[in-house]
Amino acid sequence: MSQTIVALDCMGGDNAPGEIIKGGIEALKENKDVFLKMVGRQEDVNRELEKYDYDKTRVEVVNATEVIETGEPPVVAIRTKKDSSLVKCMYMVKHGECDALVSAGSTGATLVGGHVIVGRIKGVERPPLAPLIPTEKGGALLIDCGANVDAKPSNLVQFAQMGSIYMENICKVKNPKVGLVNIGAEEEKGNNLAKETYQLLSNLEGINFIGNIEAREIPEGKADVVVCDAFVGNVILKMYEGVGGVLLKKVKGTLMTSLKTKIGALLIKKELKETMKTFQMDQYGGAPLLGLKGLVVKTHGNSKAIEVKNSIIQCISFKEMNINDKISKKLAVKKEN
Amino acid sequence: MSQTIVALDCMGGDNAPGEIIKGGIEALKENKDVFLKMVGRQEDVNRELEKYDYDKTRVEVVNATEVIETGEPPVVAIRTKKDSSLVKCMYMVKHGECDALVSAGSTGATLVGGHVIVGRIKGVERPPLAPLIPTEKGGALLIDCGANVDAKPSNLVQFAQMGSIYMENICKVKNPKVGLVNIGAEEEKGNNLAKETYQLLSNLEGINFIGNIEAREIPEGKADVVVCDAFVGNVILKMYEGVGGVLLKKVKGTLMTSLKTKIGALLIKKELKETMKTFQMDQYGGAPLLGLKGLVVKTHGNSKAIEVKNSIIQCISFKEMNINDKISKKLAVKKEN
Repeated sequence: MSQTIVALDCMGGDNAPGEIIKGGIEALKENKDVFLKMVGRQEDVNRELEKYDYDKTRVEVVNATEVIETGEPPVVAIRTKKDSSLVKCMYMVKHGECDALVSAGSTGATLVGGHVIVGRIKGVERPPLAPLIPTEKGGALLIDCGANVDAKPSNLVQFAQMGSIYMENICKVKNPKVGLVNIGAEEEKGNNLAKETYQLLSNLEGINFIGNIEAREIPEGKADVVVCDAFVGNVILKMYEGVGGVLLKKVKGTLMTSLKTKIGALLIKKELKETMKTFQMDQYGGAPLLGLKGLVVKTHGNSKAIEVKNSIIQCISFKEMNINDKISKKLAVKKEN
Repeated sequence: MSQTIVALDCMGGDNAPGEIIKGGIEALKENKDVFLKMVGRQEDVNRELEKYDYDKTRVEVVNATEVIETGEPPVVAIRTKKDSSLVKCMYMVKHGECDALVSAGSTGATLVGGHVIVGRIKGVERPPLAPLIPTEKGGALLIDCGANVDAKPSNLVQFAQMGSIYMENICKVKNPKVGLVNIGAEEEKGNNLAKETYQLLSNLEGINFIGNIEAREIPEGKADVVVCDAFVGNVILKMYEGVGGVLLKKVKGTLMTSLKTKIGALLIKKELKETMKTFQMDQYGGAPLLGLKGLVVKTHGNSKAIEVKNSIIQCISFKEMNINDKISKKLAVKKEN
């Protein structure tokens, strides 16, 4: 088995560089095929690395003097901060020095950098950001959550195709069910984008289109690939966080109301925590930005080591399954028809 | 105090006519100013009414032989079923025989009937459907959740104005905070609709615009009036149901895993149920369809008596506070500027 070389943006994210580098070390331990290029301020990276005992033949530290902050305008940041950890990671993927990059830094800068530096696969109109979201039946791919807020029907069709390839090959879901987010099940429902996309997806071969799904059915796990524009995708993702967070807080508050409930809480605490874990975003790795010439994986800004590790491990399957070749072939076939 | 005359669609909804009529009876008991015109198949309505002891001087049964089913195409249903309970209710509002109507029937038919039969207040471009949704800090108005899926910026501006009037007068929120649903806080974020609407709302006097809010902040209660197009509004509403429902199911499952957790469950059951109640949709009354010449209130399809009752009671404040006059004046002022 060949090595998968991952550029790790050690300076991006709320918990950088500590948790990022810790996650990298854990990935090295979990899988012998991982080689990491740890990109960031050399002295910071080395200081963290000194804390661990690890296989030094599979780590290279790449110095990058600048850091892109969360609030910076993405386009400006990518253009001007050439010596930032993120931009350096992007160029390493572009030049084939790495198979993939993982960053917990600015989403905007990652999207812009992916487009501008790494570049699109021929035939891909808009590269979508596609996180795995928890459902009652396991994970589903929410595609798009990225920057394509004013998407066209043909963009959404490509999202459906790329998402199917991802779920089939990376998540091993056979014949993944593709659902179009809409306000009702009937085909005449929805806004213009949804109505036109419905028609295109209905006539498309090679995907398992199950029709419209209502947002309520997403957490229920009705579809494996949840197709929508990035505005709606963002609302879905944030509603998961918002409703989940508030409900959890309310439950916790309830458990503390009296001595009786406090005793009850002690009895269920461990199990409840386990349950809640299965419904949290960070149980999965990061979100791939699909349709680029290399793999760019964005993990949550508040990622801890475990999520960083999962994101790195995810890159191995992505490379082994030749996802980009498959996307390239799939979209090329469509163009010929 | 004068009477508020409400037309109650006794045949609409999953639990009609039983729960609808029960809710009507409860409203009569709770407030002496309520007069109900109970519209539906006479024999069905009378059979239900016989179960209760109530003030017969405040009830009139209006016979309607037809029923609009949930699956029917709304436009066709409204046009052809002239003797349906819903269409009869609509005409009674239009002709001023009633102050308001309450229906748990088809949302589509209610929206269409509201537009076509009751008609818009002059100056209102698109009447939005605006349910109250639960937040950590109480209720917020989600406006629009109706049929305006391809809305224009000027529509959303009117939603902000009408929503502010509603929250201030009906829910007694002083200077209600208006938030525009977007994918980030910064004003340059979002799709074209959001960006243009942001500019218009920023320059609008007479509302308390707090800027963009992310979907995560909706359940947290950051805004009192949550402005969006109906597609996004539908996604928000359904995500509440979906995430809430799945999490609750998971928590319940956890409580049943062992003898220990079952004992724990017994100790927290009552309190947990109370907590969950505060985060359910049906704690509030129905959703008003704002901007019409009369009041049309749509309650959930699965409404039980309590929600029907709350919806009817809501009509009293709506009438007393002269909401329609206020909307009419507000939007007229805007036109003159």
